[in-house]
Amino acid sequence: MTVLYKADPVRGALWAERFAQLAPDIPFRVWPDLGDPAAVRYLVAWQPDGLAATLPNLQVVFSVGAGVDQLDLSQIPAHLPVVRMIEPGIVDGMVEYVTQAVLTIHRDLFDYELQQRARVWQPMPLRAAASRRVGVLGLGMLGTAVLQRLRLFGFACAGWSRSTHEIEGIDCYAGDAGLAAFLARTDVLICLLPLTEATRGLLGRRVFDMLPRGASLVHVGRGPQLVSADLLDALERGQMHSAVLDVTDPEPLPADHPLWTQARVRITPHIASATRPESAVDAVLENLRRHRAGERMNGQIDRTRGY
Amino acid sequence: MTVLYKADPVRGALWAERFAQLAPDIPFRVWPDLGDPAAVRYLVAWQPDGLAATLPNLQVVFSVGAGVDQLDLSQIPAHLPVVRMIEPGIVDGMVEYVTQAVLTIHRDLFDYELQQRARVWQPMPLRAAASRRVGVLGLGMLGTAVLQRLRLFGFACAGWSRSTHEIEGIDCYAGDAGLAAFLARTDVLICLLPLTEATRGLLGRRVFDMLPRGASLVHVGRGPQLVSADLLDALERGQMHSAVLDVTDPEPLPADHPLWTQARVRITPHIASATRPESAVDAVLENLRRHRAGERMNGQIDRTRGY
Repeated sequence: MTVLYKADPVRGALWAERFAQLAPDIPFRVWPDLGDPAAVRYLVAWQPDGLAATLPNLQVVFSVGAGVDQLDLSQIPAHLPVVRMIEPGIVDGMVEYVTQAVLTIHRDLFDYELQQRARVWQPMPLRAAASRRVGVLGLGMLGTAVLQRLRLFGFACAGWSRSTHEIEGIDCYAGDAGLAAFLARTDVLICLLPLTEATRGLLGRRVFDMLPRGASLVHVGRGPQLVSADLLDALERGQMHSAVLDVTDPEPLPADHPLWTQARVRITPHIASATRPESAVDAVLENLRRHRAGERMNGQIDRTRGY
Repeated sequence: MTVLYKADPVRGALWAERFAQLAPDIPFRVWPDLGDPAAVRYLVAWQPDGLAATLPNLQVVFSVGAGVDQLDLSQIPAHLPVVRMIEPGIVDGMVEYVTQAVLTIHRDLFDYELQQRARVWQPMPLRAAASRRVGVLGLGMLGTAVLQRLRLFGFACAGWSRSTHEIEGIDCYAGDAGLAAFLARTDVLICLLPLTEATRGLLGRRVFDMLPRGASLVHVGRGPQLVSADLLDALERGQMHSAVLDVTDPEPLPADHPLWTQARVRITPHIASATRPESAVDAVLENLRRHRAGERMNGQIDRTRGY
């Protein structure tokens, strides 16, 4: 019952070490050293490409990331369950990154940075967090964790999801019908949606123009959800005040892309959050146990929906 | 029984409005419109200068700020109690500012900003918050609130104070004897000390060199506590990695000061936190009640100690 890992090899060594510690009876191999293909029961991968179809006794494909959009599902045999990564390291990193971004916007730090470059000492009025309306697109584990942390600071918090949710202290909006009202009350929009055909290009002119004038964007979803020309235009018009982008399209962002040099746009190279090998191995081992016991695995996706 | 206010007049109008709402029976005046000097019982001020000595029936001097170092205590008659501002608005602002600063340092955002300026897309390894040792100098209401929020993110949290404290989940160090051990374990040093003769110039070469190499400073105390030449030198040597400074000496920082243009120094114009008029009026009214009932007021300072 071999587990085969095919992703970043440096991190793979950490996975191997943790596996050897916690489950010494389960053979763990790092691709391309796969041994006997017939022995591989579980595949842990970032982009397995055609590999899954070549392993005759494969039972589950695990993504090492929080999303599965980097997987080409058409290359994974239809009978195989696909599981995305749900582990506390990803959540902690995302909560840190988004909290920092929202506080940066809330405390006018884009504008103070411009003042610093001009060597200008000029205080601006301080707003109470309660007057700042924060809204998260996507109410999965990450969106919910982010909102619960932001709530502690006193921000006015809301969330939107395709389906109806109830979260204490958060105004929840749902579906196409709820989107306009959600956007109209959101000063700081945070995108944590999965990449699907419905969300590709969603962050474009139509959405920006439904936000209050001078709103900000924190984009920690997936690059192709953002229409960067529309963001540049909305910044130019003053409809958007600022943006924090951890994902772009393409990645890496080419050196000549105009987003790099916008005064109120911060770009980071897709580092908001990452799977932490220690806790990721724990999560995979728990899912191996569930799979063998015939239980539903944590993070098992609906392949028809794509997330 | 008049309350006289002598500080920023724009904020004074908000104080007057709140006072009229909550305590319509207490006359509230904004300097220089002081009316009959003999009627003034309470003075709320930023810098009263010689005013206190000219009010024959004055009973208490309230600072509008969290500190009292801007007051010249020698100009306030010795029998008058002096009270600093303790109200939730100041605490909220400080928790926001310091959390943003610590997350900025923790998530390598100074270095990502330099990469952005060079249009470089290069992820750095992500560290768990538990491996980042944060330390707060000063365990008053602000220092304690800051540590309690940082603890939620999983940082390794410690605090230092002149006298012994016990705070759940925080390693507390005390006195001159505890300072070296506190600094040796602190990657991100946060200064929230009051300005006294003992803390003037404290943030200098001796303290920087007791920190681990590559440490960072978040300075939200008072400007004269920092020896800026020593900070510049420590940054140059790589002993310090970065600094977030909300206070400087002098303020405003002159346009030709070298701190403005350091790559890993952020400067904001003393805006980390401010008294929020609504909650400040609540705090003063509670103290008026206590004073008239013969109880000790919240924030009443020890004039011999200076805080």
